[in-house]
Amino acid sequence: MKIATFRAGDQTLYGAVGDGGMIALSPEFPQWPTLRDVVQAGALHDLALAAKGKAVTHPTGGFEYLIPVPNPEKIICVGVNFPDRNAEYKDGQEAPPNPSLFIRFPRSFTGAGQPLIRPPETPQLDYEGEIAIVIGKEGRRISEESAYDHIAAITLCNEGTLRDWVRHAKFNVTQGKNWDLSGAMGPWMVPFTSAAQLDDVRLTTTVNGELRQDDRTSRMIFPIRKQIAYISTFTTLVPGDIIVTGTPTGAGARFDPPRFLQPGDVIEVEAEGIGTLTNTVADE
Amino acid sequence: MKIATFRAGDQTLYGAVGDGGMIALSPEFPQWPTLRDVVQAGALHDLALAAKGKAVTHPTGGFEYLIPVPNPEKIICVGVNFPDRNAEYKDGQEAPPNPSLFIRFPRSFTGAGQPLIRPPETPQLDYEGEIAIVIGKEGRRISEESAYDHIAAITLCNEGTLRDWVRHAKFNVTQGKNWDLSGAMGPWMVPFTSAAQLDDVRLTTTVNGELRQDDRTSRMIFPIRKQIAYISTFTTLVPGDIIVTGTPTGAGARFDPPRFLQPGDVIEVEAEGIGTLTNTVADE
Repeated sequence: MKIATFRAGDQTLYGAVGDGGMIALSPEFPQWPTLRDVVQAGALHDLALAAKGKAVTHPTGGFEYLIPVPNPEKIICVGVNFPDRNAEYKDGQEAPPNPSLFIRFPRSFTGAGQPLIRPPETPQLDYEGEIAIVIGKEGRRISEESAYDHIAAITLCNEGTLRDWVRHAKFNVTQGKNWDLSGAMGPWMVPFTSAAQLDDVRLTTTVNGELRQDDRTSRMIFPIRKQIAYISTFTTLVPGDIIVTGTPTGAGARFDPPRFLQPGDVIEVEAEGIGTLTNTVADE
Repeated sequence: MKIATFRAGDQTLYGAVGDGGMIALSPEFPQWPTLRDVVQAGALHDLALAAKGKAVTHPTGGFEYLIPVPNPEKIICVGVNFPDRNAEYKDGQEAPPNPSLFIRFPRSFTGAGQPLIRPPETPQLDYEGEIAIVIGKEGRRISEESAYDHIAAITLCNEGTLRDWVRHAKFNVTQGKNWDLSGAMGPWMVPFTSAAQLDDVRLTTTVNGELRQDDRTSRMIFPIRKQIAYISTFTTLVPGDIIVTGTPTGAGARFDPPRFLQPGDVIEVEAEGIGTLTNTVADE
């Protein structure tokens, strides 16, 4: 079961992925204008039921994917979360005791199939393949044991980064992580119903078919349960919130010389049980 | 002219500050449910006209201030922006060439008159008095020359910080800056109509009447025009967005020994032409 937000003409809709296209469902659920509302209502299952036996309403080619939750209250990203990734920084510092966190705005992401935008200010557009979770149940100071109860769905993220802008200032990576349409999320979300969907999942990123990142969620320094517990220590997580859970080693900046993205490149972020998030690159 | 968002009983309203209380105006403008909508419509002046000659509807004591724009798309904070503030870090590093930026969630702020919340996890709650601007006109790659045309209003911020959590991880201050209700914004916003409201304004913070921070906006390392130009290089600024423009030297962490906030403390952030933002402190 795959649920997506998409645009067809001037309409923004949501629905289920069917054979050869999308089954629009939002017209049947005016009480939930967006997938954030669906998640808030705990109603992903209702969409699944409503899609059953229905024909595709929007064949492939007749719609564009948008990011699955178009208007989350917050998108929190976890940095430096795979083995060797800390060492990649070559700053002689030990791995930190807590996850590094930064925030991205929804407008920094585009949908699947769209180009990541390389701005004229810098050629250093880089990829980072990640798994993202969608919070389904509000909570503060959530225990690691109950953390998974707060996840409604999972999706994929290409956490596109303008590398030199990450180091623009004394602290914080904010400005390198928030260029409009520099990253992507999607193509859809998959309802989360079993720990096996997250505990030991292979995550890969390819550029023009060449494998660049390849690791498993079981090797995260800060597992997803711990991320939810830690983040909810200080902020209330609410339905629709997104946590982008960290990228494996192998981003383009770590090659010598660096291999930044070029217009026309095709990047595929793939995870077992979720799918593939494909994007191209275009100059602004 | 002072425009505020406030709560009376179970109602959230907005209106103008009158003599001895608030003049509720939101009931007259159902087309604009929040002050974000008013700002988006460029209609702060309409509120001023509507308030003219009207009596107070909610006398002082009968309402609570909320943060002026309750639902901004983004709140971007500028760090290390006054002389001596960089030196306070004592890390031997030069002042950076660009402003350090971090993001706060709206839920990390409370309104004027409310307590900042000190959580049980750390006693290191600290104050930072700042001026905040409210964006009124959308823009990307805004020039410094035209930057002020994009400001709708100005307000005050106590950018309350849990100091040890700022240094929890390898990069980024996110988690020390986003504890629920750890900071404050308000009490109201003042429409921005003249450069003199921002160019050389005295900004002070007192704790229990003792002056702790005292500087002028003319001494900012990155002036507000430059902040707007720099931030809009990478992200589209939209109406209702908030930029928190930086705090002078003198936060509690910089004393030896540090002087963190205690329950019952009264903090007043004041700026010429805007007003005073007063908050207390309470343990969670």
